[in-house]
Amino acid sequence: MSAEIICVGTELLLGEILNSNAQFLAQELATLGIPHYYQTVVGDNPERLKQVLKIASDRSRILILTGGLGPTPDDLTTETIADFFDTSLVERADLLEEIAQKFASRGRKMTPNNRKQALIPQGAEVLPNPTGTAPGIIWQPRPNLAILTFPGVPLEMKRMWEDTAIPFLKAQGWGQEIIYSQVLRFWGIGESALAEKVSSYFNLSNPTVAPYAGQGEVRLRVSAKASSEAVARELIEPVAKQLQEIGGLYYFGSDTDTLASVVGQLLRGSGETLSVAESCTGGGLGQTLTEISGSSDYFLGGVISYDNAVKTSVLGVNPQDIGSDGAVSESVAKQMATGVRSLLQTTWGLSITGIAGPSGGTETKPVGLVYIGLAGPGDEVEGVRYQLGENRSRSSIRHASTCNALDLLRRRLLRP
Amino acid sequence: MSAEIICVGTELLLGEILNSNAQFLAQELATLGIPHYYQTVVGDNPERLKQVLKIASDRSRILILTGGLGPTPDDLTTETIADFFDTSLVERADLLEEIAQKFASRGRKMTPNNRKQALIPQGAEVLPNPTGTAPGIIWQPRPNLAILTFPGVPLEMKRMWEDTAIPFLKAQGWGQEIIYSQVLRFWGIGESALAEKVSSYFNLSNPTVAPYAGQGEVRLRVSAKASSEAVARELIEPVAKQLQEIGGLYYFGSDTDTLASVVGQLLRGSGETLSVAESCTGGGLGQTLTEISGSSDYFLGGVISYDNAVKTSVLGVNPQDIGSDGAVSESVAKQMATGVRSLLQTTWGLSITGIAGPSGGTETKPVGLVYIGLAGPGDEVEGVRYQLGENRSRSSIRHASTCNALDLLRRRLLRP
Repeated sequence: MSAEIICVGTELLLGEILNSNAQFLAQELATLGIPHYYQTVVGDNPERLKQVLKIASDRSRILILTGGLGPTPDDLTTETIADFFDTSLVERADLLEEIAQKFASRGRKMTPNNRKQALIPQGAEVLPNPTGTAPGIIWQPRPNLAILTFPGVPLEMKRMWEDTAIPFLKAQGWGQEIIYSQVLRFWGIGESALAEKVSSYFNLSNPTVAPYAGQGEVRLRVSAKASSEAVARELIEPVAKQLQEIGGLYYFGSDTDTLASVVGQLLRGSGETLSVAESCTGGGLGQTLTEISGSSDYFLGGVISYDNAVKTSVLGVNPQDIGSDGAVSESVAKQMATGVRSLLQTTWGLSITGIAGPSGGTETKPVGLVYIGLAGPGDEVEGVRYQLGENRSRSSIRHASTCNALDLLRRRLLRP
Repeated sequence: MSAEIICVGTELLLGEILNSNAQFLAQELATLGIPHYYQTVVGDNPERLKQVLKIASDRSRILILTGGLGPTPDDLTTETIADFFDTSLVERADLLEEIAQKFASRGRKMTPNNRKQALIPQGAEVLPNPTGTAPGIIWQPRPNLAILTFPGVPLEMKRMWEDTAIPFLKAQGWGQEIIYSQVLRFWGIGESALAEKVSSYFNLSNPTVAPYAGQGEVRLRVSAKASSEAVARELIEPVAKQLQEIGGLYYFGSDTDTLASVVGQLLRGSGETLSVAESCTGGGLGQTLTEISGSSDYFLGGVISYDNAVKTSVLGVNPQDIGSDGAVSESVAKQMATGVRSLLQTTWGLSITGIAGPSGGTETKPVGLVYIGLAGPGDEVEGVRYQLGENRSRSSIRHASTCNALDLLRRRLLRP
């Protein structure tokens, strides 16, 4: 009863493009509640495509193909499908007319090789392509098997999916039951440690709970199968609430929330403002905060004090402390935070100083050592030391530094 | 004689992530000249993974698997492979020790579920993971079949591929005839405009020339097939040189060069220094400059003047000019550049002020309007207006602003 995605294109096998079509179609199938267990990529090669069609048609009932519908000699998907099912191709006069009109409307001449785009297997329906010249097909070559083809161009494929494929699949009875997911996001805890805390939830069947990790963040996906999104949400809600409680302060948000957006909501809620002072992240903390449209409500700006002279002259860090403790130290992090808070006159000043590597580490101050400073109302100031690991890349250390700084502020803002 | 990529992960079937691992591995196989005809995605399901292993091991001689190596219950790749080949798993004491040490070095406790990452099939070799906890395997379960496994985390997978998999494959005799490519990078010209200038080169057979575009940058890939990298380079060199000449000032670098690295080389060469003043990019320009290790030689820091008060109080922009011309104007961009140059005492001051959207645009100042200021020796200062397009995303406008700023400085530094 399941669907299967087959992407045809030698450019995918050469790694020239990312397979974003597979991701889009996978999301759509999940939303419609259509089970989907396999994706295959194969080149523009009729023999190998036929082998893939053999395997897929034996194990799935809906085959969704993208790519190989165009006018060039290596576009072979339609004729290969027809050949595999021993069916001949017919030229559709209406399609030929439509393709010719599309060329005319763009002021271009239709070359003879475009004619082949009007050929479809006998008995197949046209899957119209309103934005490009290559149409797809919807075909049931035998009972309990439907084949839908799309061009590889993502925008054309998406439009065709929405206009024609979804109504077709719904008419077949799909989409009665949907899968809806909520993603819970955690920071500061490892995947295995979180998994152990919530392990009993992995045995649930509806909703299901599954962990995954990415860029230092750990996520739990709670997915429910139901007749509607509203019903799915009802199934998810109590489980998500329990998982959030177990996660405690490690839990920071769900779905599209980020550490920066959560910090932003807290600041906006309290009418407070923020400035930053950055050394090893070089502007990355400011950039992350301003990814959010409207962040100017609470984020006023900051100082990139990459060089020590900027730390002293602009932020007022004591040069003697840099000399005795080093630029990567708790005292300097604290002075950077108080310095930028006072210079920009904000409620909070948040600072980062560290060794992002790959060079610059020493025995006592290895790569990955980062201090974060946070200055706030009543001249409170704290400095926290992080050892992010010597084997991480520069980019990973800088990303983790930014996230840890945002997380430190988030936890402070949540404190009663 | 071919290789096959198998990506394991329910998150791929749900469309939660893009399959960038398959693209990376496909490119690497092409470079090594290893034929590769199929890619498969399958969920974290032992029965279906076994079916995929059956199909793949019948038609390919190298199976490359990613995903499912972690500590959680749905990470089943290693045990499923062992089970498919009727082989038992053994716990490797050295691996267990290594995993424990990695947890210790990050100040985290190793939970019991991490033990399973030390299990590998009897007779398999460890494929070490220097940056994460989950190691892979290299295993020849029967003659003429090699299996390599990697975690799904892209950074870990790439490092393991480079450190261990490439030497292994070369020792097996692959990479005798290699495909070597050089990428030429251009900024400020569209893909079709550049393609038209160099169209005659697209008919070459060895090396081949192909254009592609990404994130506003246009690239030409010059690829040669040869017995060694040295021979390939000789084939590529004269063609690359001609293409660079045709590109003129649009050409900025090749391979791993970025606008930031090229600017950095120019500044280092002349012993000059740089500071930045950022409004709509919020720190993105500084972050991009400091992605390069060693950038402290020429980049001293900057001011994130997101709020107008910071523009006036810290950078000395005249409030009356903000009132009359607006914060997004040539005069403000120029004053930001001269202000930061003078505050940080650098050779050059580079500034960005613009409307990144999606809100904040007006009839006369639409989303995508950006001014870049550049101040330099002898108090020279220029301001340039860019209209980046109203329909672009916030992230795309901010990225293009950063690149245009770097490109303006690059062109200025190249001026005799």
